[in-house]
Amino acid sequence: MITVGEQDELRALSIAKARPCVLVPTMGALHEGHMALVRMAKSLVRDVGEVWVSIFVNPIQFDRPADLAAYPRTIEADLELCEAAGVDVVFTPQVSMMYASGRSVTVTETSLSKRLCGAARPGHFDGVCTVVLKLFHLTGCDIAVFGEKDFQQLAVIRRMVRDLNVPVEIVECPTVREPDGLAMSSRNVRLTPEHRADAPRLHRALSTAAKEQSVDAVLLSARAGIEASPFAKIDYLELVDAETLQPCMGLDKPAVLAAAVFYGDVRLIDHVRIMPRE
Amino acid sequence: MITVGEQDELRALSIAKARPCVLVPTMGALHEGHMALVRMAKSLVRDVGEVWVSIFVNPIQFDRPADLAAYPRTIEADLELCEAAGVDVVFTPQVSMMYASGRSVTVTETSLSKRLCGAARPGHFDGVCTVVLKLFHLTGCDIAVFGEKDFQQLAVIRRMVRDLNVPVEIVECPTVREPDGLAMSSRNVRLTPEHRADAPRLHRALSTAAKEQSVDAVLLSARAGIEASPFAKIDYLELVDAETLQPCMGLDKPAVLAAAVFYGDVRLIDHVRIMPRE
Repeated sequence: MITVGEQDELRALSIAKARPCVLVPTMGALHEGHMALVRMAKSLVRDVGEVWVSIFVNPIQFDRPADLAAYPRTIEADLELCEAAGVDVVFTPQVSMMYASGRSVTVTETSLSKRLCGAARPGHFDGVCTVVLKLFHLTGCDIAVFGEKDFQQLAVIRRMVRDLNVPVEIVECPTVREPDGLAMSSRNVRLTPEHRADAPRLHRALSTAAKEQSVDAVLLSARAGIEASPFAKIDYLELVDAETLQPCMGLDKPAVLAAAVFYGDVRLIDHVRIMPRE
Repeated sequence: MITVGEQDELRALSIAKARPCVLVPTMGALHEGHMALVRMAKSLVRDVGEVWVSIFVNPIQFDRPADLAAYPRTIEADLELCEAAGVDVVFTPQVSMMYASGRSVTVTETSLSKRLCGAARPGHFDGVCTVVLKLFHLTGCDIAVFGEKDFQQLAVIRRMVRDLNVPVEIVECPTVREPDGLAMSSRNVRLTPEHRADAPRLHRALSTAAKEQSVDAVLLSARAGIEASPFAKIDYLELVDAETLQPCMGLDKPAVLAAAVFYGDVRLIDHVRIMPRE
């Protein structure tokens, strides 16, 4: 496994790489969810291509400086996990390499990114799009794997790929959960023991609510399920069209019930898909 | 020479192309200035690569619908010129292919694009960046050639390439002029005979003014030279730092004296470079 931080060195590796090259972009603090992405990437290269992992805590997608500062960083353990998983190249750039002073060009998304995580985190998805496109350009990857847990991020990235004709195939990987149902997230390690014990409530509440038969009933049930917690504070709770991410008027099309909740200053997200009713 | 309009067909050509592939992005209505770009492209491929020309009147970079509607379109003649010049592939997409309905992702530049042509044409350079990046992605080109005449466009594109790590080398080609000094432009054919006869005044005024010894003297001279015309109306006239495109405070650094003038509804641009005074 090669670990590379500099742009010139990366460029040399990119020119010489075997294809297909599958990129798994991450912000580090790798857990079993990321390793599922890596395993999917390994299956896609079919023993001829290469799996690359990028580890970069992207400052421009954080709206709260405290969240950026508190984001877990575990680079030594991350590299061991990548090595054990058979990753070919790990790209670990510095912030100063990724963002020149006086930078003035960004990628902006003006539709899918305005609700849900985007409403509460202005600039977040523009920051995601910008860094993902930079990583695509820097690595020259053919395929990139993203977790379905961040379903809005996936929708925004797919839109970017379509609208900018980005020559990268986007593959999604199902959410990996702890045995008690909590979606794996790098932020989970920051939960207090009490909050950690309560947090599976989020997925339970969404899954139970998804069985209701009307938009109002789904939302009421989910809200009640979450608010029964002595700790969880709802950041958003929405039932949106799976395609447009606009609020659902009915349950006649594929929908997504999505929520973000705060446990103290730790923000967790989760969602369930709801298929159209007969 | 292959002429291609569809994305799938282009993708197949892109995969099979010889390298380096040099792209000359144009809006058609090709003239001697464009052919200079093509000749430069030919010299860059050194008999092993391919020269591609794109012809696409990009609607999202026009701020005035009348300007878009009036933009000259001479596709038959364009293709003949390309064929004669030894171009390998001409890409002529339809608007509906380039811009999906409901598109929501664009590239935005927030510094270099705010003055000069950008001040008078809001959204223009975001439209340029977006289409150029799309063309880079669609063609997979290694090098792209642009005319130095559109020096602000060149500066904005170079900034995009830097800030988004676009793996394309940008090469610039000197402005080609008519014998009387008028910079070649697809818009020149729309000038009335009287306006055409007067138009070389723009370059003369800028060149004369560039010999003055202070910022104020340069700007006064240029303004007087242009306003002596019975037809020309100044859209902007600015002396800017060659690097930042911000207004010059002195003549101690490389600068650009740039103007846009209207002859009727035809807008012409030109500029001269001013080297630092001793």
